[in-house]
Amino acid sequence: MSDLTSLEKIVSLSKSRGFIFQSSEIYGGLAAVYDYGPLGAELKRRLNQAWWTAMTQKHDNIVGIDAAILMHPKVWKASGHVDGFSDPMIDDKASKRRYRADMLIEEHIMKLEQNGDTDRAKELQDLLDTSGTRKSLTEDLYDIIMEEEIRSPDSGAFEWTEVRQFNLMFDTQFGATSSGEDSKVYLRPETAQGIFVNFPNVLNTARQQIPFGIAQIGKAFRNEVVARQFVFRMREFEQMEMQFFVKPGEDNEWYDKWKHDRLEWHKSIGIREKNLRYLDHPQDKLAHYAKSAVDVQYKFPIGWQEVEGIHNRTDFDLSQHQEFSGKKVEYFDPQTQERYIPYVIETSIGLDRCVLMTLCDAYREEEITDDKGKTETRTVLKLHPKLAPITAGIFPLIKKPELMEKARMIQNELSENYKVVFDEKGSIGKRYRRLDEAGTPFCITVDFESLDDNAVTVRDRDTMQQERVSIDALDRYIYDNIKSWKPQD
Amino acid sequence: MSDLTSLEKIVSLSKSRGFIFQSSEIYGGLAAVYDYGPLGAELKRRLNQAWWTAMTQKHDNIVGIDAAILMHPKVWKASGHVDGFSDPMIDDKASKRRYRADMLIEEHIMKLEQNGDTDRAKELQDLLDTSGTRKSLTEDLYDIIMEEEIRSPDSGAFEWTEVRQFNLMFDTQFGATSSGEDSKVYLRPETAQGIFVNFPNVLNTARQQIPFGIAQIGKAFRNEVVARQFVFRMREFEQMEMQFFVKPGEDNEWYDKWKHDRLEWHKSIGIREKNLRYLDHPQDKLAHYAKSAVDVQYKFPIGWQEVEGIHNRTDFDLSQHQEFSGKKVEYFDPQTQERYIPYVIETSIGLDRCVLMTLCDAYREEEITDDKGKTETRTVLKLHPKLAPITAGIFPLIKKPELMEKARMIQNELSENYKVVFDEKGSIGKRYRRLDEAGTPFCITVDFESLDDNAVTVRDRDTMQQERVSIDALDRYIYDNIKSWKPQD
Repeated sequence: MSDLTSLEKIVSLSKSRGFIFQSSEIYGGLAAVYDYGPLGAELKRRLNQAWWTAMTQKHDNIVGIDAAILMHPKVWKASGHVDGFSDPMIDDKASKRRYRADMLIEEHIMKLEQNGDTDRAKELQDLLDTSGTRKSLTEDLYDIIMEEEIRSPDSGAFEWTEVRQFNLMFDTQFGATSSGEDSKVYLRPETAQGIFVNFPNVLNTARQQIPFGIAQIGKAFRNEVVARQFVFRMREFEQMEMQFFVKPGEDNEWYDKWKHDRLEWHKSIGIREKNLRYLDHPQDKLAHYAKSAVDVQYKFPIGWQEVEGIHNRTDFDLSQHQEFSGKKVEYFDPQTQERYIPYVIETSIGLDRCVLMTLCDAYREEEITDDKGKTETRTVLKLHPKLAPITAGIFPLIKKPELMEKARMIQNELSENYKVVFDEKGSIGKRYRRLDEAGTPFCITVDFESLDDNAVTVRDRDTMQQERVSIDALDRYIYDNIKSWKPQD
Repeated sequence: MSDLTSLEKIVSLSKSRGFIFQSSEIYGGLAAVYDYGPLGAELKRRLNQAWWTAMTQKHDNIVGIDAAILMHPKVWKASGHVDGFSDPMIDDKASKRRYRADMLIEEHIMKLEQNGDTDRAKELQDLLDTSGTRKSLTEDLYDIIMEEEIRSPDSGAFEWTEVRQFNLMFDTQFGATSSGEDSKVYLRPETAQGIFVNFPNVLNTARQQIPFGIAQIGKAFRNEVVARQFVFRMREFEQMEMQFFVKPGEDNEWYDKWKHDRLEWHKSIGIREKNLRYLDHPQDKLAHYAKSAVDVQYKFPIGWQEVEGIHNRTDFDLSQHQEFSGKKVEYFDPQTQERYIPYVIETSIGLDRCVLMTLCDAYREEEITDDKGKTETRTVLKLHPKLAPITAGIFPLIKKPELMEKARMIQNELSENYKVVFDEKGSIGKRYRRLDEAGTPFCITVDFESLDDNAVTVRDRDTMQQERVSIDALDRYIYDNIKSWKPQD
């Protein structure tokens, strides 16, 4: 039994079973953009709902909002994205292709190492690490490329433009003026700012006192230069973010609490504890707005990677918006009669990466023996049943009208509360395999006995054990089993 | 009791209670873009879920997908949007503002009518109706503006550019090439095409046979020139679309069925039947892809307006994608061994407009008499309880620790399944009013008797009647009352 599997197997299952497809596939695809197929769309929705319920329904002091993707351009001036959210790029004049200058140099260093020239590699790495300290960042990178005569990976040419900063925000022309800079708006590169600019609105309407949080789920866009590894780094992606507003001085305490609680959430959706860990960011590597930061990492097939970040953003964002908008964004504390700009503890998780994590954690290949004594490998997604795209499959044992009718009746009843599919094709064993791959926790077979005893055989996805359950008790049986489910190791 | 209210009242309540805010409000807003506040975000989510459940859970033969907003640019060539999705625009050189040429002329005609010059108005209306038949559309409109010396509404100048077609799609530069037309992508102007290009993928993975449907909810973007009337015509909006693939020849039958079923859905979310009607599109006014089309209209305060469209799109879109992609998008019928491109019946509803419809239909101002015999007006949102942003309010009668504790306990229990708020401030009457405005169906008061009889007083939002309910039976009481709810006239 293997439980840590290759990313390729997940990509392959995603495509063959309809979890995730490349966007616009019939037109050759759009790089680093993906579409969710029938199973993927359901899994993603359930993760979305699990997060939303955990945040807004189970916390009296967190409210949700849903801000637009398009925002006033000044938002991104204030947040620092217009000036700072960029990568140093260089163009190959021969091929017209663009490259990230620092990555070109890194690849060059790797080649030097492979060729045994470790001294020169080390020297260059030092130069790269200190770029930005001699002239400017772009000039220092340019100098290294010139010095080393690094050639273009595609054309082999050595005909570079200058290195320039390339902003990662997508922009578009908005409205019906005769164009120009005034009408340039951006696709938001993060959802957080939609929460910050609505802080005064929520304060005025939601009857909340600090400490309280605002949660949001929505799309964000980044024109990543190096976008790769499936849904890991996408140009269009979905974030689930919560900003928790606290009194300055109480921020460390709340940071610790959310750090703890967020890891618990990952366990609550069925992720195995052994595959989760924290990675604290060292103080000298923090983003400009952060006082402290930690990643929740998951052990993906390609190694430990961030799925969520918890950040102490201080009063940076609200202060910036107060300055740039000229509007007060302070909080008035009715108890102490103080006014202050709150500190913010942020929890930020990528929904797409979360989908991938649940697929990786659920994926198993198991050697099993069939009823004829033959061993075979079954692929099964041991998803938390509350996340399963299809909760139950209903199988009439054979295609006899009386069994079909009874099975349809059960399907209709269960469909009130669950996503249920009907499958009458092939052997029961084959039907089990198909729904194992879809992560369906309950397979319900209607046989001739069912006509007499008004009961069915329910087969458990994880243990493959079968149990006879009265049809009248089915809904409750499913509900209880979802509630009590625990991941197997 | 007034039940048809002005749009202004809805806008005002939306802002004061946190349903809908203007986007980026602290920066002066972004025209025709809106953010959902805490109550609005919950209402929108519940409408989204009600539609998704009705479509994908309760129909065995409809599956969901979630395609990206960014798609390959050829998609919009094939769909006709690159060439055809545009408005004729003219620029005022003095003010640099842009206007829709046909609307300038229409406003001019209205002025002529107001001034009693009905003959000239009629003559011009004929000219406008036949524009595009003399020279080109843009030239004909330009000629009328010149002929009539129509002046700019803002500057009063008569310094116009030519009339040009202005595409309503937002575009952006994608990827890291050195820019140019090759890397131009669009923000999708409709979600439907995400379904069409994924038709082969779904066919290969979802084990469905025709007739079957694909459902999707997601954002779409249109750079509307005349964007106004609150969330009626937004530049960023959300669509809930379902494309139902049928055998050619069976399309009329399925069109009729979906026409019927979609109106029923509006009733199922609590919209009063008297405020719903069909508007069939006459054959000579159909879009280029449509064989027949009907709107489901709602009687908004500003009059009857479309909330949903049902269209017979024939095989237009799939045929176009087959031609432009060079890939077969046919269906193979295993029964008849035929190959064909299916016809498509589309149901397309605007989620934002649906939010507005539910608010309008639920809004009531009622004269009531308080316990001291004083009459007052209560504003109440009689939303379907399953859509209510907050399902229940828990009120300790007074702030005594034992009542507070009991109330918190009830809140925690109900929060497992429902969004619940706690309110201990002000008189019970005031607390009722606040939650009436939020559309909360159940207000639960914990009093001193509760400590003895383990029961609470549940007050019904619609009837204002109170009932004593055992705390152990509360969850079930709420569940049953949501199930059995019917709208009052």
